[in-house]
Amino acid sequence: MKSLTKDVKVVVFDTFGTVVDWRGSIIRDLSIWGRNEGIQADWTALADRWRLEYEPEKNRVRNGEIGWTNLDELHAHALEKVAAEVGIKNLSRSQMQHVNSVWHRLDGWPDAVDGLTRLKRKYVIGPLSNGNVALLVNMAKHAGLPWDNVFSCELFRHFKPHPETYLGVCRLMYLNPAQVMMCAAHNYDLAAARALGLKTAFIPRPIEYGSGQTTDLVPEQDWDIVAKDIIDLAQQMGT
Amino acid sequence: MKSLTKDVKVVVFDTFGTVVDWRGSIIRDLSIWGRNEGIQADWTALADRWRLEYEPEKNRVRNGEIGWTNLDELHAHALEKVAAEVGIKNLSRSQMQHVNSVWHRLDGWPDAVDGLTRLKRKYVIGPLSNGNVALLVNMAKHAGLPWDNVFSCELFRHFKPHPETYLGVCRLMYLNPAQVMMCAAHNYDLAAARALGLKTAFIPRPIEYGSGQTTDLVPEQDWDIVAKDIIDLAQQMGT
Repeated sequence: MKSLTKDVKVVVFDTFGTVVDWRGSIIRDLSIWGRNEGIQADWTALADRWRLEYEPEKNRVRNGEIGWTNLDELHAHALEKVAAEVGIKNLSRSQMQHVNSVWHRLDGWPDAVDGLTRLKRKYVIGPLSNGNVALLVNMAKHAGLPWDNVFSCELFRHFKPHPETYLGVCRLMYLNPAQVMMCAAHNYDLAAARALGLKTAFIPRPIEYGSGQTTDLVPEQDWDIVAKDIIDLAQQMGT
Repeated sequence: MKSLTKDVKVVVFDTFGTVVDWRGSIIRDLSIWGRNEGIQADWTALADRWRLEYEPEKNRVRNGEIGWTNLDELHAHALEKVAAEVGIKNLSRSQMQHVNSVWHRLDGWPDAVDGLTRLKRKYVIGPLSNGNVALLVNMAKHAGLPWDNVFSCELFRHFKPHPETYLGVCRLMYLNPAQVMMCAAHNYDLAAARALGLKTAFIPRPIEYGSGQTTDLVPEQDWDIVAKDIIDLAQQMGT
C-alpha cells in the first residue's frame, strides 16, 4: 500500500460513470420496458441526448437562475425538453416518471460490487455524487452497492465541484481532508478534491460515453492512485 | 405480514437502546480501557450519570439556549460536567476524547445484526437517531449494522421528537409518511412518528437502563407492530 494514502479513513466515489454504467443501463432498462409497453423510441439517443443536458441543468442552480433543486427534478426538466427529439411522445405522467426514475435503476460496472466489498472491510465507503439521496439509496439497493453511508450532494445543497461538497464529507466525519480519498473517472472531480487537500484515485472508464469517447481516457495529473478498476483500487489500498 | 404495513418501503430505527446496548457497551469498553491505562473510575456510574444529562443537553438546543450542536459535542459538554462525580480526573485531552467517543463503539443487542440483515433484503433500512453522522457511521462499522443509509438528525438540525426529523426522512426518500416505519424501544418516539402518519413498531428493551428499569416496559398505544426483538420484527414484516 502506498504511504501517500496510509492516513485515509473514508473513500468516497463519484457514481455516474465511475461506479455505475449509466449509459448502458439506461439503454438496457428502457429498451425492455419500451418493448413491453409498446413504446417506440430511440433509447440510445435518449441516453446520450439527456446526458448532454446534465451540465446545463446543474448550471441553472450554480448560476442562481433557480434555487437549490435536486438531480431528480433537473432530470425531469431535461427529459421534458429532449423527449420529442428522440421519439418519445404521448406518454402518461406515470410513464414519464418511470423513465425519469431510470437513474435509480443503474447497474454497477462488473468490478463494482466486488471492489467495494473489499474496500469496505477497512474503510468507510460511500458515494459523493450529484445524485440525490433517494436516487443513490435506490441505486445502491438495485445494484447491490454496499455503501456505509450515502454522502449525497443534496445534503450540502451544492453540486460538485463546489468545495462545500468535498469539505462537507470531511466535516460530517470529523476528518482532515488528507484522511478522505475521492475516487472518480473524471479528472475535473479529482482536481477539485486535490485543491482542498483530499487524496485522489483515478479509475478510467473509457466506454462510459460509448465507443467513441475522447475525454478522461488518461490521468491528467499524478493522482495518488491510478487503478484499472475498483478491484485494483482495493488491492492498491491494501484490502 | 400485517396488511397495515404492506406499503412500507423504508424502516428506520432509533439506535441508542433500540439497536445498541449503550449502557452495557460503555461499561465494558471503558472498564477494559481504564484497566489498561491505569485509570480508576466507576464506569457503571459514569454510564448512568452521563445519560441523565442526555435530555437536559438536547434541551439546550431545543430551547434556543445554544444554536445547533451535534450529539458528540453535547456528550463532551456533559462529560466535563459529570466526570469528577464518578472519579474521572486528571485525564489528558486525548484520553477525554477517547472516553467521549465510546458512543461510536457501542455493540448491538444480540438480535440486531441478524434482524437488520433480514429486513434489508426487502426494505431500505437506516437509523433515525439523535446521534450525528460520524457517530452513527462509526457505530455501524464497529457493530456490523448493515444500514442502507444513515438518516442522522444532524442532517435535519433538529433532535427527535421534532417533526422535521421524521418528515425529513419521508422527503429525502420521496415517500408518504405511511410508507415509512419508525421502530423504537421508546413510546414517546413512536407517538411523535404516528402523529405525522408514519407506521410504528415497538421493541421493548427492558434492561436498557439496567435491571431496575421502570419505563417503556410495555407498549402504551396499539402500535402497528409489537415485536420481541429485531429478528421477530423481520419475521412479522415478511422477511
